[in-house]
Amino acid sequence: MPRPESEQMSLILFSGDFDKAMAALTIANGAAGNGMPVNIFFTFWGISLLRRKNTDGGLLLEKLFKRIMPLGAAKIGLSKYNFGGAGPWLLKKLIRHKNGQTAADLLKMAMERQVRFIACEASLKLLGVKKEELLDYEHLEVAGVDTFLQKALESKIVMFI
Amino acid sequence: MPRPESEQMSLILFSGDFDKAMAALTIANGAAGNGMPVNIFFTFWGISLLRRKNTDGGLLLEKLFKRIMPLGAAKIGLSKYNFGGAGPWLLKKLIRHKNGQTAADLLKMAMERQVRFIACEASLKLLGVKKEELLDYEHLEVAGVDTFLQKALESKIVMFI
Amino acid sequence: MPRPESEQMSLILFSGDFDKAMAALTIANGAAGNGMPVNIFFTFWGISLLRRKNTDGGLLLEKLFKRIMPLGAAKIGLSKYNFGGAGPWLLKKLIRHKNGQTAADLLKMAMERQVRFIACEASLKLLGVKKEELLDYEHLEVAGVDTFLQKALESKIVMFI
Repeated sequence: MPRPESEQMSLILFSGDFDKAMAALTIANGAAGNGMPVNIFFTFWGISLLRRKNTDGGLLLEKLFKRIMPLGAAKIGLSKYNFGGAGPWLLKKLIRHKNGQTAADLLKMAMERQVRFIACEASLKLLGVKKEELLDYEHLEVAGVDTFLQKALESKIVMFI
Repeated sequence: MPRPESEQMSLILFSGDFDKAMAALTIANGAAGNGMPVNIFFTFWGISLLRRKNTDGGLLLEKLFKRIMPLGAAKIGLSKYNFGGAGPWLLKKLIRHKNGQTAADLLKMAMERQVRFIACEASLKLLGVKKEELLDYEHLEVAGVDTFLQKALESKIVMFI
Repeated sequence: MPRPESEQMSLILFSGDFDKAMAALTIANGAAGNGMPVNIFFTFWGISLLRRKNTDGGLLLEKLFKRIMPLGAAKIGLSKYNFGGAGPWLLKKLIRHKNGQTAADLLKMAMERQVRFIACEASLKLLGVKKEELLDYEHLEVAGVDTFLQKALESKIVMFI
């Protein structure tokens, strides 16, 4: 039977939705908890989860996109039944009631378990998000598709979420 | 050339949408038809496909979520162009006209081909869905992320849908 | 360290959304640029990207679906914040401003890099799209799930997008 600690997992988190982020981070934390090295490549809407603050400056169009994109894991919405934020609010209520973990909790746990975060360079450039606007985490790096591919080639499990 | 019967496939079906479920089940049935052992891990909205009935009881919030989530593969909607149910109705009409298979047909075929179903324990707990509310199928088990990871490590093909 | 040119990548592009297509094609082009053979299996809404024109004939229902589905990579919308086409328009403006590449540009590059395109036979049949309505590209073939599975079994990286 394969031993998790001898294999890597690499996830692309393209989605910035609460429900998909929960799924991705639950899988990542499960694997990391079993000693498996895990890489998450955050791209496009997935960048939302890594955002910590907005700094000044930037193009008008960039400002518009950055206003639309949620600022951090506590602000993200559902992929379905979002109902202008009522869906995530209800879901978080249900999670709290059952002593479960929200996307923000799971992200924190992933950092405690030293999951490697890679923020997609092209997405940051496109959306005008700067590295200093992202979470302050020692295992977070900014890199491109070649870095992801190298990690994926070394991994036993690769998924696009 | 690799022989399918010597390799496993593991799918995570996160989506509860008609179109994505059709894709997942078509791939699963194709693989199982070629003698490949297939595992489907149903999580979050994907749980909809396994639901057979509602039993009494549960929190108000749980009842709300269970009312929003479709009850079984015959009730699920499209990921796009759902138009309040008109999209799936038209698509099913088109499928019937061409002697194709709906998501419900494909799910039945997957069971005939003994595809292994794993219902995500954390999703059931969160949404308040009980095991007795799921399809009655001998190859359906309730398990957590560790079970999925073990299956994924044994698999040649792993996808998140 | 694994060498990309000795491994294959197979992607299923189920989505017909601008943002997901950009992600899929960026990964495909990155891999192909490193000498990796890449297969993209276009299914369901993903067929939109391969469509070049409509020919006459077909059922009323087919015509309806073909009218709803975008005709080619220049016409596709966003998975989120589409705002009736304003979202993709703004995003394309931003991409042009930064000398980036749109989904249509990336599709063209994939063809230059000889990425193999497989159009899902069942999706074409279901939607009434004929082979002569697809892009004229020597590495495009129409095939079914068995062909995809064979490619996936030969691949190191497999993703559903």
